[in-house]
Amino acid sequence: MTRSGTAPSWSGWGDPALVPTLPEPVVTLLGQALGVTPPRAAPVAMADVSLPEPDLPGGCRDELVALLGAEQVRDDRESRIRHTRGKSTPDLVRLRGGDAGDAPDLVVLPGSHDEVAAVLRSCAQHRVAVVPFGGGTSVVGGLTARRAGLRGVLALDLARMNRLLAVDAESRTATLQPGLLAPQAEELLGAHGFTLGHFPQSFEYASIGGFAATRSAGQASAGYGRFDEMVVGLTVATPQGSLELGRAPASAAGPDLRQLILGSEGALGVVTAVTVRVAAAPERRIYDGWRFGSFPDGMAALRRLAQDGPRPTVLRLSDETETAVGLARPGRLGSAPSDGCLVIAGYEGAPTDVTARRDAASAELAGCGGEPLGAEVGQAWQRQRYAGPYLRDALLDAGAFAETLETATFWSGMGELYEAVRTALTEELTAQGTPPLVACHVSHVYATGASLYFTVACAQACDPLAQWQRAKTAAGDAILAAGATITHHHGVGADHREHYAREVGPLAVDVLRAVKDRLDPAGILNPGVLVG
Amino acid sequence: MTRSGTAPSWSGWGDPALVPTLPEPVVTLLGQALGVTPPRAAPVAMADVSLPEPDLPGGCRDELVALLGAEQVRDDRESRIRHTRGKSTPDLVRLRGGDAGDAPDLVVLPGSHDEVAAVLRSCAQHRVAVVPFGGGTSVVGGLTARRAGLRGVLALDLARMNRLLAVDAESRTATLQPGLLAPQAEELLGAHGFTLGHFPQSFEYASIGGFAATRSAGQASAGYGRFDEMVVGLTVATPQGSLELGRAPASAAGPDLRQLILGSEGALGVVTAVTVRVAAAPERRIYDGWRFGSFPDGMAALRRLAQDGPRPTVLRLSDETETAVGLARPGRLGSAPSDGCLVIAGYEGAPTDVTARRDAASAELAGCGGEPLGAEVGQAWQRQRYAGPYLRDALLDAGAFAETLETATFWSGMGELYEAVRTALTEELTAQGTPPLVACHVSHVYATGASLYFTVACAQACDPLAQWQRAKTAAGDAILAAGATITHHHGVGADHREHYAREVGPLAVDVLRAVKDRLDPAGILNPGVLVG
Repeated sequence: MTRSGTAPSWSGWGDPALVPTLPEPVVTLLGQALGVTPPRAAPVAMADVSLPEPDLPGGCRDELVALLGAEQVRDDRESRIRHTRGKSTPDLVRLRGGDAGDAPDLVVLPGSHDEVAAVLRSCAQHRVAVVPFGGGTSVVGGLTARRAGLRGVLALDLARMNRLLAVDAESRTATLQPGLLAPQAEELLGAHGFTLGHFPQSFEYASIGGFAATRSAGQASAGYGRFDEMVVGLTVATPQGSLELGRAPASAAGPDLRQLILGSEGALGVVTAVTVRVAAAPERRIYDGWRFGSFPDGMAALRRLAQDGPRPTVLRLSDETETAVGLARPGRLGSAPSDGCLVIAGYEGAPTDVTARRDAASAELAGCGGEPLGAEVGQAWQRQRYAGPYLRDALLDAGAFAETLETATFWSGMGELYEAVRTALTEELTAQGTPPLVACHVSHVYATGASLYFTVACAQACDPLAQWQRAKTAAGDAILAAGATITHHHGVGADHREHYAREVGPLAVDVLRAVKDRLDPAGILNPGVLVG
Repeated sequence: MTRSGTAPSWSGWGDPALVPTLPEPVVTLLGQALGVTPPRAAPVAMADVSLPEPDLPGGCRDELVALLGAEQVRDDRESRIRHTRGKSTPDLVRLRGGDAGDAPDLVVLPGSHDEVAAVLRSCAQHRVAVVPFGGGTSVVGGLTARRAGLRGVLALDLARMNRLLAVDAESRTATLQPGLLAPQAEELLGAHGFTLGHFPQSFEYASIGGFAATRSAGQASAGYGRFDEMVVGLTVATPQGSLELGRAPASAAGPDLRQLILGSEGALGVVTAVTVRVAAAPERRIYDGWRFGSFPDGMAALRRLAQDGPRPTVLRLSDETETAVGLARPGRLGSAPSDGCLVIAGYEGAPTDVTARRDAASAELAGCGGEPLGAEVGQAWQRQRYAGPYLRDALLDAGAFAETLETATFWSGMGELYEAVRTALTEELTAQGTPPLVACHVSHVYATGASLYFTVACAQACDPLAQWQRAKTAAGDAILAAGATITHHHGVGADHREHYAREVGPLAVDVLRAVKDRLDPAGILNPGVLVG
């Protein structure tokens, strides 16, 4: 449910009541600078969505009803539409246009590991594709399974598997079911005095299983780490049996197979339990704003803190464009144009730790040429930290196209990567007659490098899907040519599959195929996602 | 070469001149408490070692000579003996007894990735097993390939691949060849102002490739991390082609395939280059000794620092036995019996950082009941940090059996694991009529758990290999029953293969076999190591 108590939007993000009205100056800017014109048609109503007839081997459905009960096996119109694709802009554009052509034939809601395992066995036997479904927030086509060669598609919704299974306070670990949404997980852990510390932009609607399957990274990754760093144990169901991985924080007992499942995006198995490292719930949180003269100046400051510390818990840097249009704080979009580059440095923890780290990091930031903007700017960022996707809905409503993509590389390659991707997006979309605004930020830092997260906005072409496909391909080509990774935290899905194969090379793809053939010989697990 | 300028010992550890003379009280203690009697025979001379005739398909040797040059293809007696097995106590016992039955037929020394790849292709064609050989320091049978089903065994010595290929000072990464020994790597990095920060007990003779292949952990892992955490990129040669893995510090582009190669122990491919995160060479190093009343008290203090910081760079805790016999500082063995449990807390870094961390950590250690023993005790540990293996040679010379094994688990299971392994070793060896001394330390800490490292000494039975096999099996069974991992940093090798398979389960083993079948269809890569 959403904050306003209604079901989340089926064709947009979250709570429809929270989609902002674009300020008049922004609308003017969109029209004048980007040539955005009002949309030709409003989004369709759910009743008008075009939905294919469900088509599944009859015996399969009966078997699933016998396994799970009729209540947990659904093929009503709304269930199917709500499990159609994810939340990328192309996904939303298709649904807003009434196209639910990728809808699953059936939605099932298993309640346990054993039920998941039984569903997989049944689907393998009937050759029905299985799309594991957590929060449904994939932005890379991770929920768009290939139907070809199979006899149907089933969405495996993990919503009923939403319990905190165990807390080990001494070891500071917790075992969570995959269908827990992040806010529920935080609430359950909070009752034990812990936090997971994982706050991606999708926080309000994303699931624990999805975090594991996609190697999610949250906004506080500088302090709490990426999700894949938090995972110490995994339980996985596959059509060929179960895996129980992780008996210690670290081990030399062979390859780390947890790291083979993390990032496998439902193509190798279904994660049915995740044991994570948790942290003491912070007693104090404070976020500061800083201004740097240029993106390279800000980057140098971030690198310094990432390499020599002290590490803030949150550390972000917006480029000049993102800072100027106020995208770093969507709530103030267009109303607070500013120059330079905004840095947010946040600290969470015990009061003395927060004070010590904040003092030392502030001295470093000032020493690197940063100008303090105070905690008010930081708090404003914090209030709006999950607002980006709502802004996208408003831009789509206004006739614009808005989407994001992200990558990562080592520090010495950051400048080149930034220019290459910006140039590729700008040139490709300009050539199409829709010159874009391209903004960027650094939101995840490591000792050896960092991520770059791009936001693109432009006028919608006649065929916005083809328009973006070409731009995305150009950006992906630029990313690979710069030696960077095609995705830092969104995942591969179906959308990045070709670039992913180029990134890791044919032998690595063959290795993954060999693993998949062993665990999923019928090829039913999220076909077309990750590997072909 | 060794410090005294001679070749390292072929049947013991390192520089024979550094094997200590056991103090008289220790010899008395061994005799009285453990029933150790002088050995029945001295170790054989190299000339008296029994070595099978080399037996390799003729065409294979010719092909290798054509590829590498005659100089780099060796089957002289000394080369073969020096590449026979590793440095476990059973390995040494066999060689001291003149048994080189596992000697490779041939030793080859490729000079580049392409030469390694060519050797692998040739060996695959001729069905000759390939044992990658770095420092030769495996203590788990990682160099004892199974000959059955193949037409010969070749040791692939990487000693000529000993260059620092690249330093990226901005990203703080360095690319190293696998045959670099750790001291060489430190020296080369030191010239750029960096350290790898990886100091396992085998430091003086172990190689970069070996660290990667076995997921090594060094004595300063609390500060610099484990080796697998340092690796950001890998180049791997396999019979089916090459892998280039790692384009960013972190990525969501599928499973982390670096983590599939790390810990693969030469069974999936040969690591030909490793790109690692490096750290600024520390300007200051200081190590303090602390005394805790009991092992659980010390463990609680370590857990506190591991979970809430500040993290020392080195953090170790010896149990009462290890502390009492002085094993924590082998140079003072028997001469400084003491009570309680010794903790070493070391700090490396910039002077202000060292001072701040030392002050804060010392306050925590004192707050947890620790009694400061001063820096002299810490420096004494530092001087002797690599001395353990020499002590083993002295004990073998005296007729004792001495060996180590290690494991890891989560904090809440540490007490049970400690008791279970200690009891298993003690009961099994006592039942054999050779009651042991079992000492233990914690040398690697994480937020969620830690490692346990056991040292066992007892009288040699008539058949010391069978004696230890039974004790090791009992310890391994106890480790698995306690839910812990069969190895924290030594690796699986041939010795842990059965317990490893039980630890990860049959489906995980099948997954690894599927990967191996894809990369090494002829099954020539270190057969019998890791997977069957």
